[in-house]
Formats: sequence, structure tokens, C-alpha cells
Amino acid sequence: MTLTPDASGVFPIAPTPFNPDGTLDWASTEKLFAFYDEIGSDGTTVLGIMGEAPKLEPDESLRIVKTAVAGMPGKPVIVGVSAPGFAAMRSLARQSMELGAAAVMIAPPPSLRTDDQITGYYAQAVEAIGTDIPFVIQDYPLTLSVIMTPAVIRKIVTDNPSCVMLKHEDWPGLEKISTLRRFQADGSLRPISILTGNGGLFLDFEMERGADGAMTGYAFPELLIDVVTLQKAGKRDEAHDIFDTHLPLMRYEQQQGVGLAVRKYTLMKRGILKSDAQRKPGSAISAAAKAEVDYLLSRVAKIDPRADI
Amino acid sequence: MTLTPDASGVFPIAPTPFNPDGTLDWASTEKLFAFYDEIGSDGTTVLGIMGEAPKLEPDESLRIVKTAVAGMPGKPVIVGVSAPGFAAMRSLARQSMELGAAAVMIAPPPSLRTDDQITGYYAQAVEAIGTDIPFVIQDYPLTLSVIMTPAVIRKIVTDNPSCVMLKHEDWPGLEKISTLRRFQADGSLRPISILTGNGGLFLDFEMERGADGAMTGYAFPELLIDVVTLQKAGKRDEAHDIFDTHLPLMRYEQQQGVGLAVRKYTLMKRGILKSDAQRKPGSAISAAAKAEVDYLLSRVAKIDPRADI
Amino acid sequence: MTLTPDASGVFPIAPTPFNPDGTLDWASTEKLFAFYDEIGSDGTTVLGIMGEAPKLEPDESLRIVKTAVAGMPGKPVIVGVSAPGFAAMRSLARQSMELGAAAVMIAPPPSLRTDDQITGYYAQAVEAIGTDIPFVIQDYPLTLSVIMTPAVIRKIVTDNPSCVMLKHEDWPGLEKISTLRRFQADGSLRPISILTGNGGLFLDFEMERGADGAMTGYAFPELLIDVVTLQKAGKRDEAHDIFDTHLPLMRYEQQQGVGLAVRKYTLMKRGILKSDAQRKPGSAISAAAKAEVDYLLSRVAKIDPRADI
Amino acid sequence: MTLTPDASGVFPIAPTPFNPDGTLDWASTEKLFAFYDEIGSDGTTVLGIMGEAPKLEPDESLRIVKTAVAGMPGKPVIVGVSAPGFAAMRSLARQSMELGAAAVMIAPPPSLRTDDQITGYYAQAVEAIGTDIPFVIQDYPLTLSVIMTPAVIRKIVTDNPSCVMLKHEDWPGLEKISTLRRFQADGSLRPISILTGNGGLFLDFEMERGADGAMTGYAFPELLIDVVTLQKAGKRDEAHDIFDTHLPLMRYEQQQGVGLAVRKYTLMKRGILKSDAQRKPGSAISAAAKAEVDYLLSRVAKIDPRADI
Repeated sequence: MTLTPDASGVFPIAPTPFNPDGTLDWASTEKLFAFYDEIGSDGTTVLGIMGEAPKLEPDESLRIVKTAVAGMPGKPVIVGVSAPGFAAMRSLARQSMELGAAAVMIAPPPSLRTDDQITGYYAQAVEAIGTDIPFVIQDYPLTLSVIMTPAVIRKIVTDNPSCVMLKHEDWPGLEKISTLRRFQADGSLRPISILTGNGGLFLDFEMERGADGAMTGYAFPELLIDVVTLQKAGKRDEAHDIFDTHLPLMRYEQQQGVGLAVRKYTLMKRGILKSDAQRKPGSAISAAAKAEVDYLLSRVAKIDPRADI
Repeated sequence: MTLTPDASGVFPIAPTPFNPDGTLDWASTEKLFAFYDEIGSDGTTVLGIMGEAPKLEPDESLRIVKTAVAGMPGKPVIVGVSAPGFAAMRSLARQSMELGAAAVMIAPPPSLRTDDQITGYYAQAVEAIGTDIPFVIQDYPLTLSVIMTPAVIRKIVTDNPSCVMLKHEDWPGLEKISTLRRFQADGSLRPISILTGNGGLFLDFEMERGADGAMTGYAFPELLIDVVTLQKAGKRDEAHDIFDTHLPLMRYEQQQGVGLAVRKYTLMKRGILKSDAQRKPGSAISAAAKAEVDYLLSRVAKIDPRADI
Repeated sequence: MTLTPDASGVFPIAPTPFNPDGTLDWASTEKLFAFYDEIGSDGTTVLGIMGEAPKLEPDESLRIVKTAVAGMPGKPVIVGVSAPGFAAMRSLARQSMELGAAAVMIAPPPSLRTDDQITGYYAQAVEAIGTDIPFVIQDYPLTLSVIMTPAVIRKIVTDNPSCVMLKHEDWPGLEKISTLRRFQADGSLRPISILTGNGGLFLDFEMERGADGAMTGYAFPELLIDVVTLQKAGKRDEAHDIFDTHLPLMRYEQQQGVGLAVRKYTLMKRGILKSDAQRKPGSAISAAAKAEVDYLLSRVAKIDPRADI
Repeated sequence: MTLTPDASGVFPIAPTPFNPDGTLDWASTEKLFAFYDEIGSDGTTVLGIMGEAPKLEPDESLRIVKTAVAGMPGKPVIVGVSAPGFAAMRSLARQSMELGAAAVMIAPPPSLRTDDQITGYYAQAVEAIGTDIPFVIQDYPLTLSVIMTPAVIRKIVTDNPSCVMLKHEDWPGLEKISTLRRFQADGSLRPISILTGNGGLFLDFEMERGADGAMTGYAFPELLIDVVTLQKAGKRDEAHDIFDTHLPLMRYEQQQGVGLAVRKYTLMKRGILKSDAQRKPGSAISAAAKAEVDYLLSRVAKIDPRADI
């Protein structure tokens, strides 16, 4: 099974579970994918920025892919393969596909600036991994400092038939979704899937602008599924109601640098991870921050019992 | 009246009202400060980044200062004086104080990197404007890309007796407030006022961490006043309740690049500005975005009638 | 007299002479332009980055324009008008032209990233200053961090008939000159003048790639004139010989941050400036650095007597 | 044999030789180290930025270390181990030392900004690799955008006894060398070795400011050895004479982005590399650029017969 341009729904971005000593916690890794599967996720993405991918050894990366594929049977697993060199990108991409992955995700290196540099980079990357592997464009300017206009994305999609999805994480980004869908409507862009990131902070409106779903790491992926499902069913007010209930916590989680620590802490509290440890160099949150997360959880729980942990 | 380190409460950051042809709209400017005064603001800040300060002619800048001083009698007006050269900074600072301003605000130029460069810059700036003018440090890494550690802020405050306030706009920034207040507690930092920015997006917890109030431009400064007042009165849950009601709109307003357009649109809808125009080069929002703001306003209005516009 | 696309030769970038107390040194300013004129410069550029333009008051800027126009009769004076807002840019541009300037130079603001942002910015700038004022594109990625591809430059030139010149300061930039001249050859770009910067560090080959001359601030503009003249006369080896003689000093001058201090020190030693002071915030060079410059001058002087000072 | 703080002389930075198909060219790799040894290099550095290290597979990296150690018997080999995660850094560092490397070199990740972040990062890195492995600080702001003040370097050296050397590549950087040597003189910094980079562009004066030698990749390391030897022997004018002869070519090689292509082309012309290929994504130089390098070589060869190739 490979990813196609009609992919849709919620693909949680998986954090990588570590033990406090920095080794990988494989039991929690299995539990994590079982959890994603059980709540009705449509797929998952591993080895992304939030997955601490650059800190992993090659064999650890592959075992995570294997674990994800096994843990979510019949569902697509997307593998982040961004790397400084195309040799490493190619080898991870091809090995991942052999292990059952459905697609790979490629972020542009932070040094790219001009439109030509960006489209040129994707052309080279696709040549490196092979045109038979479906890929996802990761568009994340806040962290990567690479800015892709809608026209640049259109060119990448048009030039590379193996491009099936945009991981949309521009900020602000609502107009970008509208513009891309307008390109589709006027026939200048073939249909692709658009899943959004940014911790879900704008998911309520992103769905209304034409997104197909979410690919992000909020510690309650159930909420993402709710919003996506309600919006697809045309239940706008209900979608915003449940979204707004979680927004104070989502906003807290979406802090550059400490966000992952908040997320892992919450997943640990939920019993999904055994530890909230990050591999070094990592970040941690203070006792005050934990108390704030606890308080936010208790407030969400007044309306959404899933947060009552 | 000059600003002192025990300043506290809410100082709305004033946008600069323009007519659609790019000229200044002085009637709206007067209305704006009257509005800030009337709702119980504790002061105001003009000529900040959100005030489109670099686009103004020198005489326009001074007239804005004069209008703010006249419009908020007895309340401190802080003037952003950041400039590429110290000659311009000095002349704006001294003229503003003569016109009745209470203090000036200085942001570090984006080229600064090391701790020494930052503290050295503030030493030079204070020498330029004169040690008799109280000043506010603007700490806004997301836009300025200058990162000040708590120790750097402490050094600036200690080296420069005329420093009275920190405009805190780091993101994430909760731990920074805690650290600075710990410095005060252990005697290594003299007391200063800390007002927070970032559109108010973390004001709920910033107050709990030790902030004295808010200095930001959310289009409902009344909400900022509510949160600050409730938190000071120890009414934590009530503070979060009203804060959470506005959070969906605050989050929408806090989008880099388009935030000011959203803010001006809302202020126009509220009848405070005649136009939401920005002087060129400016940004604008689409019809879809306006409809989204309208929808968010209608949702806030279900609980907070002030948003029923 | 206005600047045309067949402008050619050497336009020294003028530093702004200050007295040690930070006031403008008008006597040296007059001397400087007289010197440029006397040695056979083809024009000059004032209020550039090296001219400490952002530190000047508006009336000082205008008086510098006036002094340059008076000091180089019959030769074109180009005025840097880059500013954060279009109102200030327009007023400086129009006033400068009234005072006899031949053209203005516009650098893109450092925040621009995508091709569309860059071409859009120039469109707005031209609308602001008026289509009747000839302008120069300043392409200086090392300092401005804005990268313009040859195609972007072509689009700016094509979209704006008032564009007459490119100040080429990319690094590395030889291929860019070749590409632009190829565009001209294939008819996709109308002819424009290309003058190069970067302290002249690659002027030897830039002329061979198709540049029309130099616009930079090396403290011996006579050397720039020699290289340009010899290359235009087809005397390649002689051009490189004299260039190589000066290269050790040019290289020393071309240090980010301290370069202006080296340049002013040399111009002071040459008797053209009374002081090497910069207006604050400025840089200075140590006694060791001065001794190094002296040593380099003595070495150049063995071959080029003009350096015997 | 491990590296000590009295290391001195010239350590060429080794490029990684590739075949045109992107595979490693092991024959050229052996030839390269034999060449470095034969001309009298004092050591070598492998897997640096110029060595295209991030594009290598782990086993390739180790084989390069092994080849260098074997090819330069009795001379120290320094291994670049910079990596996004400490697990990879540790494993490369420890395996390299087992293979006979003398030390490792660590560059700060580009995201670091404040003094505390930088010193904290080195503390964590040393903890990761072990305090028994001598290490070199790489200070290269132009590419890494991390700025270390002399005081920060002093703190890293003081906090970490295993720090033995600074790879100095700041630009401009002469004052930094002077300041560090002044720290040594006043007893606040223990002695460390300082080797300089930047393609050798300021080596003439760096030696006079107190550098112990050079660690850079200029395609004529013999010239670096000449300058270092002559300066150590107090023959200042002779050092500058031979330096100035090569400066036009060194300047040409020191172009960001294309510099490595120029370097590999020259090494290929010298018969040391079989191909000037880079592994993808790489850069290449045009026919015009090759002709320019040829011309520069012919000019250097008039005085230095080693360039007659």
C-alpha cells in the first residue's frame, strides 16, 4: 500500500519514546502506535522533527518504521527522510518502503532561499530516492526558515508526479490553502492531499479553507479526529466548540523549544509513554510548567472527559 | 510624570490610524486614545512595531506622541524610539519627553548576537538619549531575532539605573518571568516592572508567573484588563474563564504579518478606527479572513457582550 | 541630467565624513567629492550602507546630496534611498532629484524571501517614488540576506522601465553577471548597466564577465579606475598586474564590520578626511590594525607610488 | 598519540574524493594523505564541512579516518564529529579514537544564539563523547551563524580540560586572536593551540597576531606551510611576499558555495584527485570559471613553480 493524493484524515506525528537513560523505549513505541490505531487515526508519520529523528542511529530509525507498520496494520505510515546528503536520504527512503512504509516526507534544508533553489532541491531529491516512491512536501517556515510560495509548491507538484501530499505548516497559512485549492479549481494544479500541522492551532479554519485533515503531534489526537470529522460532516459550530475547549492546551503545547516536552509529559500522564525523556540535546519543563499543564488538563476535562487523567 | 519601576496594569500598544490614501487619520487617533482612557487602561505605548513607526515622518511621530499625551491625561505614555542611528533615537526621545511622554522603549537591532553586543548596545543607547529618561527594554526575539537571557536583562537593568520596565515578548517566555522574579527575590536584580506582549496569548499564566500586566495590541484591551485585574485579585479560575473565551480570536490575531490587518479590521468594526488601512508597504486580509474574524467575534459575543458588534 | 542604462566606469561609494564629536564634517565632504572628480571618477553614490545613511537626519542627507552634485559638476550622483517606509523613500527620492541627483538606489529590506516578495517590493517602491525617477537595484545578499536570482532581476528590469542599473554585490557573483549578459544576448533582457561592489575584490574578473565598471568604496578609487580602463582597453594582464598589487589591502578593507573603519583610516591618511570617526553606533580599529594597514600601504607603495602616504 | 595544546603548524582540511558516480574514490583518498604527509603537513583534519561530511554513510566516515591515520603515520588526525544528536557524535568520536585519531572537532549547531546556550552545548557534548577525548572548538560564524565572543571561548576552554585547540574561522577575526592571547598573558586562559581557517585569506597577519598555524583547505597547502614557517622564523616580508603571490587564487577559492568546486578542480589539475566531483547535492563550476582558475594558476606560476601544472 502506498500513499495517494486522496489521502485524508488524521496522521499523528509520532514522538520517539525514550527511557530516561536515552535508550529507545520500544514497549512505549508499540503502545503508541496501538493507541493511534485504536482511536481511529488514518495513518501516522514517524521520524519527523518532533520525532527527534536527527538524534537516532540508522538501525533505530528503521526499527521505528517497522514498529509503526506493524502497529497500524492496513494504514499508511509516512517516514521523514530529510537528511543533509542524498545518499542517506535515498537509503532511508528505500529501506523504509521495503519495510512497508507508504510514503516519505522531505523538508527543504534551511539554507535554501530562492524559488529556483527550492524546486531544484526537490528535483534532485526525487532523482535520488527514485520516482517510484510517493513523497510529501514539508512546508514549515517557522522552523526551517524556507518560504515556499503557492507557485513554488505547484511547480514541485507538477514537475514530480510522485508528489502526493503537502504537509502544510506555514504560519500564517490559511490563505495558502485557499490559493492552492484555487489552483486546483482553475486546472493549473493537479489534486493533492493537504494535511496541516502547527500543533493544530488553526485546524478549525484550515478545514474550512480546504485542508484534508491534520498531520501534527497534539497529545490528544482524538481532538484532531473530532474536528476533522465534524468539519467534513458540515457541523461547523460543533467543530469549533470542541476545538475551542482544547485550544488553551493546544496553545500551551505549541511553544517552540518546549512544545515537545509538554507533549511527552501529557502522553506520559495519559499512560501511553513510560517516560517523558528526550534524547540529548533535549529540553525539559519545570515543575511550574507541569502544574500549568495539569491545570489546563483539568479545565479541558470539565467538558471533554478524555482529558480527565 | 515619568514611568517608575512599579508601573503595572495594561498599556495597549496603539496602532497608527491611516486613511485609505495613506495619510494619517487624526480623528481616529484621538478617538483611539480616548477609548483606551475610558476603558481604564493604565497607560499606552505608541510608535511600536505594530504602530508602523518606521513608516512615519518625524513630525507625524511627534504629533502622535502629543495626541496620546493629551488623550490620556495623567496616564503614562511610552514612546518607541528604536532607530538605526543614535542621533535619530536621541532626538525622538528628548522631543517626546518634552511633549509629556513618561518613558521611551528601545528594541535591540536585529544584527546583535552575543551577550556583550546586547548589553553594549543598551549602554550606548542610554548614553545617547541621556540617563535622565526612563526606558523600557523590548525583548521580542520572534520578530527581532535577538535573544536576551535573563542574565543579560539583569545586566542591562543593573548597569542602567534609568531602566524601569521590561516589555516581555519572548516566546516561549514563562520561565523567563519566573527566573527574573527569582533574581529579584535573591537580591541580584532590583525590582522592575514586567509587562507582557505576544498579543496576550499567554497572559493567563504570565500573570501567575509574576508579570505586572500587559503591553500588547489585542483589539479588546478590555479583556486584557479583565485578566490582569482578576489575577491580581487572586481569582484564578475567573481569569482563565474570560481569557479562554477570547483565546480563539486572540490566536487568530496573533499571526505574523497579517496580525495587524486583523487587529485594525476589528477596531474598525468596533467603530474606533474609520479605516483598517495600513501605510505602504502593508498587508491586508481577504474576504475569507474577514468572514472568519466575524464568525469568531460572534462566538465570543455569546459570552462576552462587548464582542457583539 | 539623469542616469541611463549605458552608464559605465567608476562611481565611488562615498563614506560620510564625521568630526570626532559626531557632527558632520562638511569641509571633508567637499574635499571628498572634489577628489573623486579630479581623479576621473564617472560619478558617485551617496547615502549607501557604507555612508552610514540610517544614522543621518533628513536635512543632513539632503545637504550631502547637494554637496555631491556641486562637487562633481556634470557627473551623475546616485542617492541611496532605502528606507523602512515608502513615505520616507519617496520624499528623499523626489527631493534628491530636485537637488540635481541623477538616480536613486533601492535595496530590498532584509525580511524579503521569495521571488514574488522581491519583485512585488520593487513594484511598490517604484509606484511610491514615481516612474519618472531612474533607479538602481542594489543586490547585496551578504549584508541584506536577500537573494535575487538572475530571473528575478530580469523581471524587475522588465516590469519597471525606470530601472537603469544593477549594483551587483552578490558573493560569489561572477556567474550572475554572465547569466544576465546572456539574457541580454538572447533578447530576454533589455540592456542595463552593471556596476560591481564587494570592495572591488573580484573586479578583475567581473570586467571580463561583462560588468560596465565598479561602484564601491575602496580607499584608492584610482585603482578601480585603472582596472576598469585597462580591461576596457583589452589589456588583461596589465589590469591583473595592478589589481594584484592592491589586492592585499583590498582584502584587508573588505572585512564585514571593520571595513569602514579601515577605509576611513586610509582616507584620513591620504589627507582627504580630517578624521576617521564614525557616528555612533560605529566601529573602530585597534592600534595593531592601523599598523597592519600602514604595512600594507608601504608594500603597495613599492609598486604604486600613489600608496606612498 | 593524542592532540595537545601545543599543537602547531599546518593541518590541511581534507576534501573527500568522489568518483563522478558519487561513490568514494579510495585511491585518490590515499593519494591525498600521502601528499599531505610528503609536503610536510603537521597533521590533517577530516570530515569537516569542506569534507562533505553530512553526506557520508557512517562506514564511509570511519574508513576515511582509517585511511588518514594510515596515510600520515605519526601525525595527528583530527576528526569532525559535529552531528545533530549526541548519540551519533559520541559513536563517531569514540570509534575514531579507537582507529587512531588524535582529537575530534565540534562545531556548534546553527540554532545557538546566547553565550549560555553555546557554553552549555559544549558541556553537554563533552559529557557525551567523554572527557578523555581531546577536542577542538570550531568557530565559524560565516557558515554556522553562531558568534562566540573571546569570553565564551575562554569559558569553554576553562570548563572543559579536554579542549586543546581552537579552529579560528571568524571573519573578521584578527582582534579575536589578539584578545585570546591577551587572556593567556593575563593568566585568565590556559594555553591552547589556535589554528586558523577562512581559506588562509588572512593567514599572513593571523600568524603575527599569535596563531600557531593554519587548518584550512587551500589547494596549495605548501603555501600555508611556507607562510607559517617564515612567520615563525621572523621573516615577515618574505612571508608576505609568497602569501601575496598566491592571494589572487586564494581569494578566488574562498567563495562561499563554489569554493569547494574550485579547490577540487585545482587538486585534480595537480594530479592528486582523479575527479573534481562532489556527492549530491553539490556545486560545480562553469567553463568560464575553470579558465579563470587556469589563468590565475599561470600567473602564480610565474613566481611559484609549484603552480605550473
